[in-house]
Amino acid sequence: MPGSLSSAARADLAARLGREILADIPLARAIGLAVSAWDGDSLVLAAPLAPNVNDKGCAFGGSLACVMTLAGWGLIRLAQDARGLAADLYVQDSALRYLAPVWEDFSAVARLAPGEAFAPFLDALGTRGKARLRVECVVALADGTPAATLEARFVALARS
Amino acid sequence: MPGSLSSAARADLAARLGREILADIPLARAIGLAVSAWDGDSLVLAAPLAPNVNDKGCAFGGSLACVMTLAGWGLIRLAQDARGLAADLYVQDSALRYLAPVWEDFSAVARLAPGEAFAPFLDALGTRGKARLRVECVVALADGTPAATLEARFVALARS
Repeated sequence: MPGSLSSAARADLAARLGREILADIPLARAIGLAVSAWDGDSLVLAAPLAPNVNDKGCAFGGSLACVMTLAGWGLIRLAQDARGLAADLYVQDSALRYLAPVWEDFSAVARLAPGEAFAPFLDALGTRGKARLRVECVVALADGTPAATLEARFVALARS
Repeated sequence: MPGSLSSAARADLAARLGREILADIPLARAIGLAVSAWDGDSLVLAAPLAPNVNDKGCAFGGSLACVMTLAGWGLIRLAQDARGLAADLYVQDSALRYLAPVWEDFSAVARLAPGEAFAPFLDALGTRGKARLRVECVVALADGTPAATLEARFVALARS
């Protein structure tokens, strides 16, 4: 998903989302957020360590929470964009685990949670104007060790 | 807790923590974070809406997560400071609920979770060099309605 888009169209949507996030969300600018990759099934957002350190010099938990939340949000927003659905998308709840300190630039990879699928979410959003979807997200160290994880539920409300 | 400190000493510790957070954590500066009040049992951190908006113009969930996480962290750090214990304090996990959009400047109030107490935490940190403590935090609207909540567990590691 969305298999119907060309890779150029996917890259355009992802680049546009990156510009919108930076334009609309001041904290994303402070984080230095960048869209790294989107293949329809996963979205990767990247951030440099320097603007995101804590008092220990490793990544601030709040920065990790921001980047993982935005990765999950962006994953769903791009699915909406690919379907041409205009809807406001809100995070409803999330569970985070901080497993290891992050001493390097980091990326968050968001995917749908097990058992979730874009098609029924987008169908419900189109017909009922409201739909929910769960995502999971991970920040891994350069060696692949998971350093932080997020599970979150989002709700989309069609714009009238 | 800490009942043994004068209100002036409490105000000094809280002001020092506020300066340290802003000096050490760039994202706290971007958020415009300020320490509002600390009475030993609760810590209140405040943030203006403008630097913390999302694409809808209300408070970005990541900003709420940052302020609530820092409020919980700060509550425990101040208890450590009041006891004179030097320890690195990390968030281990957290659960967040976003209940209502926040269209105004906001504050997060952190308290210990039910069943938790500072004294056994500080005693364990002093004797064993490691201890955990759970907090809960809420961002309420001006009319008192809870808009976001966080439950989080922190671990403190004494500096050798």
